[in-house]
Amino acid sequence: MILEIAQIDVTPGQEAAFETAVAQARPLFDGATGCHGISLHRSVEMPSRYRLFVKWDSVEAHNVAFRGSPAFAQWRGLVGGFFATAPVVEHVGQVL
Amino acid sequence: MILEIAQIDVTPGQEAAFETAVAQARPLFDGATGCHGISLHRSVEMPSRYRLFVKWDSVEAHNVAFRGSPAFAQWRGLVGGFFATAPVVEHVGQVL
Repeated sequence: MILEIAQIDVTPGQEAAFETAVAQARPLFDGATGCHGISLHRSVEMPSRYRLFVKWDSVEAHNVAFRGSPAFAQWRGLVGGFFATAPVVEHVGQVL
Repeated sequence: MILEIAQIDVTPGQEAAFETAVAQARPLFDGATGCHGISLHRSVEMPSRYRLFVKWDSVEAHNVAFRGSPAFAQWRGLVGGFFATAPVVEHVGQVL
């Protein structure tokens, strides 16, 4: 299992609307092959910064299958307008 | 509940020793007031980069109580020698 960590900076003032959009987008991840769910976390120190966690079977399930699917375009359509900058995405594997 | 996310870059070649040291240090967190456990995650894209997740009752439980305790000095004593740069620490609260 791989955890995607996406750092998303939202345009200040758009935080509530962004959170609503992510909630609306949740079924896109729940229905994606190899996806095991999302959670959204807001920074204490930088309140316009979020971390989206997405559990995947593999990096390829995210980078190839999901990003090549219509669900990815729908996801970006729902939330992309709130991005202040391009998200920074990494993948990590749990070791402990 | 607050999640601390610490980005830790380890000196290349020291990854296995760092992971062993974090495993040794785990009881320091398990015994800390207001701490609900740690997990360690290694970056796929940057194999010398880790993310340490620590669950706390509050930011103060981490920044004030833990950092002011002997356990923090023990933690840094165990792992600090493996750091390539100073860790970058943030706190997030789950919103979804």
